[in-house]
Amino acid sequence: MADPTLAKRLLDGDRRALARAITLVENDRPEGWELVREVYPHTGSAEVVGFTGPPGVGKSTLIGALTAARRAAGRSVGVLSIDPSSPFTQGALLGDRIRLTDHFLDPGVFIRSMANRGALGGLSEAALQAALLLDAAGREDVFVETVGVGQAEIDIIDHADTIVLVLMPGSGDSIQALKAGVMEIPDVIVINKADHPLTDTMVREIRGVLSLANLDRTPEEVRGSWRVPILRTEAARGEGIDELVAALDQHAGHIREQGQLQERRRRNLRNEVLAIATARMRRRLEEELREDPEFKRLLDEVVERRLDPATAATELLDRETT
Amino acid sequence: MADPTLAKRLLDGDRRALARAITLVENDRPEGWELVREVYPHTGSAEVVGFTGPPGVGKSTLIGALTAARRAAGRSVGVLSIDPSSPFTQGALLGDRIRLTDHFLDPGVFIRSMANRGALGGLSEAALQAALLLDAAGREDVFVETVGVGQAEIDIIDHADTIVLVLMPGSGDSIQALKAGVMEIPDVIVINKADHPLTDTMVREIRGVLSLANLDRTPEEVRGSWRVPILRTEAARGEGIDELVAALDQHAGHIREQGQLQERRRRNLRNEVLAIATARMRRRLEEELREDPEFKRLLDEVVERRLDPATAATELLDRETT
Repeated sequence: MADPTLAKRLLDGDRRALARAITLVENDRPEGWELVREVYPHTGSAEVVGFTGPPGVGKSTLIGALTAARRAAGRSVGVLSIDPSSPFTQGALLGDRIRLTDHFLDPGVFIRSMANRGALGGLSEAALQAALLLDAAGREDVFVETVGVGQAEIDIIDHADTIVLVLMPGSGDSIQALKAGVMEIPDVIVINKADHPLTDTMVREIRGVLSLANLDRTPEEVRGSWRVPILRTEAARGEGIDELVAALDQHAGHIREQGQLQERRRRNLRNEVLAIATARMRRRLEEELREDPEFKRLLDEVVERRLDPATAATELLDRETT
Repeated sequence: MADPTLAKRLLDGDRRALARAITLVENDRPEGWELVREVYPHTGSAEVVGFTGPPGVGKSTLIGALTAARRAAGRSVGVLSIDPSSPFTQGALLGDRIRLTDHFLDPGVFIRSMANRGALGGLSEAALQAALLLDAAGREDVFVETVGVGQAEIDIIDHADTIVLVLMPGSGDSIQALKAGVMEIPDVIVINKADHPLTDTMVREIRGVLSLANLDRTPEEVRGSWRVPILRTEAARGEGIDELVAALDQHAGHIREQGQLQERRRRNLRNEVLAIATARMRRRLEEELREDPEFKRLLDEVVERRLDPATAATELLDRETT
C-alpha cells in the first residue's frame, strides 16, 4: 500500500515527496506505479524538453544556463539526467553535474540523475514516469538530458515535446560522420562553444544535411512547417541562451497551434503502453517457463544444436496461443 | 525462399555467402532466419570471445594483434564490431577499423561491422545470429567487439564464451568510477597501453575491486575457481599478445573442464529464445492493435489523462488473456 499522503504531498510540490516518488519508480516498486496512476490526471501541463548530443559538448552547462533563465522568468524547473550507455562515462557525468550545483539550493529547481534500468520496461519507461512525476509536482519546465544519441538515448528523449541536439565545432567529428537518421531527431540544434573558427563551416554542413534529408519527403510530413533553427551558444558565459529560450518557446507554440503536440504525445503514450505491456509479457513468460518441462526439452534441443533459437521461440509462442 | 545454394556455400566457408548471410540477418529477412535454422546444426565449434571497454583504449588494435597471432597458428578468424550506442563514435570507429586493414586481404580473416538494430529482438540478437553464421562457416575464433559497456553492450558480449574487458591506465577514469557490477563481467582483464607510470597503480586498484566483489559470494559460484588474470599489453607493438593468447586458451580449457561452457551456452541460448519470443509477441500485439477500436479508446483515455499508461497496459494484457 502506498503512503496515502505521498500523492498529496507530491501534488503540493514537496521536494522530498518527489525524490521518494522517483526512487519508487526507478526501483520498479508497485507503490511507484500506484502513485503515478493517482497523480496522472494532474499531468500534461509541463513543457518537456529533451537534450542529446555527444559527451563533452556542454549539455549540462547549457541546461544550467537555461534553468537560470527560466527561474528568472519565475518558472519552476525539473532536470532529469539519464545515462543509459556506459559506466565509463560516470566520472565525466558527475563532473558535469557540478555545473548544475548553482541551482542545488534553489527550491524552484529539482535535479535528479537516473542510471538504473530496473524499472519495468527499462530506463526509457522509468524516465517517462519520472517526468510525469515532475509534471504532477508542478514543474513547468522539465529538461531531460541523455549522453549520446544511440537508440537507447533516442527512446528516452522521444517522450519529450521538443528535442534539442547539442553539438560543438572542431570536435573532430564531422557532421557527415553522424549516422543516417540522427538529423531527423532534433527540433532545435544548438552549437555550443561556438566561439570557434570552425563554427560557420559546421552550420553550413548541418544546413546541407538538413536540406538533403528533406529532399525525399515534404517538410510538412516530417515536422509540419517547422524549420529547424541552428543556434550558437557559449553556455558557460550565458551567451545565446535568450535565443535558445525564444526558440524553445516558438517550437512549443508551433506544435500547439498545429495540433502536433497532441499527436506527438499520443504517439509517445502509445509506445509507452506497448513497451510496458511487452515487458510484462516477457516477465509473465519467464515465470511460466521457470519450471516448465516442455521448455526444458526445447532448450535441450537448442543446446544440442538440433533446433535453432528462433524456431524454438516460434514453437514456444505457438504453444502459448493454442 | 532462401537461395538453396547459400547454406551450402556458407558451410564451405565462402566469404561472399557469409557476407550475404549476415546482411540477411541484420536486415531481419525471413531468408536469414531460415538460413540460420539450416546451418545451426553445424555450429558450436567456434570459440567466441567478446571484447568491451571504453572508447580509445585500443580494442581494435588488440583484436588485430590477436588475429595475427591466431592466423600464425593456422586458425581462421571472424571479427564482429558492434556499435550499439552512439552515432557520434562512428568516425572513431572507422578510424579504428584501419588497424584491422592488415587483415583485409587475408581470406582467413572475415571482418564485419554491425550497427543496425533492425533484426528481430535488437542488435544483441542480430549479433548472436551473425556469430552463429561465422561459426557455421568454419571460423575457429570469433571475436565480438563492442564500444562501451552499457547494458546494450553487455547483452551483446554476454553470448561469448570468454569475456575480455580492455582498459588503459591514466585515462582519467578511476577504477572506482566504474559502475557497480562492471567488474563481475570479465573473465580476462587487459590493460592496454601499459607502458605508463600509472599501470601498477591500476593493477592494484583492479585487484582490490575484484577481491572486494568476491567477498560476498564464493568465487566458485561466480565463475568456478577461475581467477581473473590482469594482463598488460602494448597491442600496437604486439607486446603481451602471446600472454593474452595463453590466457584465452586457459579460460577456454577451464570452462570446458568444469562443464561451464555448456552451462554458459545454455543460459545464453535460453535468453536468446526468450528475447526472440518477446520481440515477436510485441510485434504480434502491435499488429493486433493497429485497427483495434478498443485500444483506440484506451489510448484516448491515456491522452486525456484519465488513465495512466501502466494501467492501460494492464487492461490490454488482461483482455488478451481472457
